Amino acid sequence: MAFSKTDIHHLTALACKAADAAAIETLVHFRTRGLVADNKRDQGFDPVTAADRASEAAIRGVVTAARPGDAILGEEEAGRDGTSGVVWVIDPIDGTRGFISGTPTWGTLIAVGDADGPQIGIVDQPYIGERFIGTPQQAYMQRGDMQTPLAVSAVQDLSDAIIFTTFPEVGSTDERTGFEAVAGQCKLVRFGMDCYAHALVAAGHVDLVIEAGLAAYDVQAPIALVRAAGGIATSWSGKDAHNGGQMILAATPELHAAALKILEPYAYD
Amino acid sequence: MAFSKTDIHHLTALACKAADAAAIETLVHFRTRGLVADNKRDQGFDPVTAADRASEAAIRGVVTAARPGDAILGEEEAGRDGTSGVVWVIDPIDGTRGFISGTPTWGTLIAVGDADGPQIGIVDQPYIGERFIGTPQQAYMQRGDMQTPLAVSAVQDLSDAIIFTTFPEVGSTDERTGFEAVAGQCKLVRFGMDCYAHALVAAGHVDLVIEAGLAAYDVQAPIALVRAAGGIATSWSGKDAHNGGQMILAATPELHAAALKILEPYAYD
Repeated sequence: MAFSKTDIHHLTALACKAADAAAIETLVHFRTRGLVADNKRDQGFDPVTAADRASEAAIRGVVTAARPGDAILGEEEAGRDGTSGVVWVIDPIDGTRGFISGTPTWGTLIAVGDADGPQIGIVDQPYIGERFIGTPQQAYMQRGDMQTPLAVSAVQDLSDAIIFTTFPEVGSTDERTGFEAVAGQCKLVRFGMDCYAHALVAAGHVDLVIEAGLAAYDVQAPIALVRAAGGIATSWSGKDAHNGGQMILAATPELHAAALKILEPYAYD
Repeated sequence: MAFSKTDIHHLTALACKAADAAAIETLVHFRTRGLVADNKRDQGFDPVTAADRASEAAIRGVVTAARPGDAILGEEEAGRDGTSGVVWVIDPIDGTRGFISGTPTWGTLIAVGDADGPQIGIVDQPYIGERFIGTPQQAYMQRGDMQTPLAVSAVQDLSDAIIFTTFPEVGSTDERTGFEAVAGQCKLVRFGMDCYAHALVAAGHVDLVIEAGLAAYDVQAPIALVRAAGGIATSWSGKDAHNGGQMILAATPELHAAALKILEPYAYD
């Protein structure tokens, strides 16, 4: 279903209220000593902090109080089915590795959409004070009283592109080979900014993002945000990516096509 | 020579004034479209922007007006010899790759010292509004009206350590092997934050930094800052690192010793 203008206005305002509630929880923990990072996985380091859990609880509280019939899918708690058809997909802290390192490049991700995918996406970085907002009507960055419109870059050739990724920390060996085949043709490669790099695609400073091994809550807000700013967001084979897995964010159709051509042998969907 | 208390007060205030002047130049260019990145090197991508040059000129202007007898070593212009024995070492934008990608993890670096190395170090990130200041008397972060004291972490074991580096973008293949041997024993490895990661060592959020292929203007401000916060800054063989090359920043003597033991075969000084 397509949201009406009124729906979009209401849902975006509620998403901002939820992001405000999350920020109180994240900022009270950010850069405190003795932040506890539990290990969710058997192998490797996947930190989950008290801040993650408190942030997700705060978002759920705001959404549920206003819209008890909406479905919610989050990183930390079990998903909740809804009756309204509206789905909230949230990552309370995307980039927890950055969070526990004191780098303000993590973000709180809130997407609102339906079973067909996200329509509204927010990437919130409250320490810097930046909120990137994308809806079917507009894309802008709010910082204090200042609103800056967001629009993707016009870069068409890989040789002119700045590419970001979370590799080498995500993805299989094959997927990494695919990423590197694209990255090797780009002007500049940068690593490890998580959702903050996705927001910079919407802002027109980063031209291409290639990721793999992501979950729905990692990708839905960035997908809606980048699309709202005029960019393209798909899987590595050009399909919808809102269930996670392999994702590409591109500023232009030309850049998207050039990356897809190289990634095709490594795409699994 | 050791600076007197009065010298330190005066020089730190002047360094802050210079950082203010630099911020005007950097912020007017940050996140503008069509930022021109020249290529300084024959191979690879070493971007130099108009913002770099304007920032260095602003710093030199402030320093020279107040202290014409001081020496200045900067990244963009030829060095100037002095008569006072005081040496300013400046990098107008450290992390230019981050700068042109829109990520606010670059910094303006200002060190003040003498021929024996830096004594005062400033890492300034004006978009976020953070200024990390280290002197022989104190270490603190200034953000708006808020001053936060800086102190390194108490982490002693590599297995508990968060390590940052600019690898794989700097250093030789051998040096990278050395870095990876240390990183493989650490709890968490992060890439590409340049001076911002160095400031986070002083702030106690990052425990270890290993770099290679750096210049004097890359390292002097971080060295003074990390030492002021109680940390250790040396070359890979434990010698002074203020002329650049290989550098290690460590929160504690134990962590420093553990890293040095692994890096020793790869140290060249």
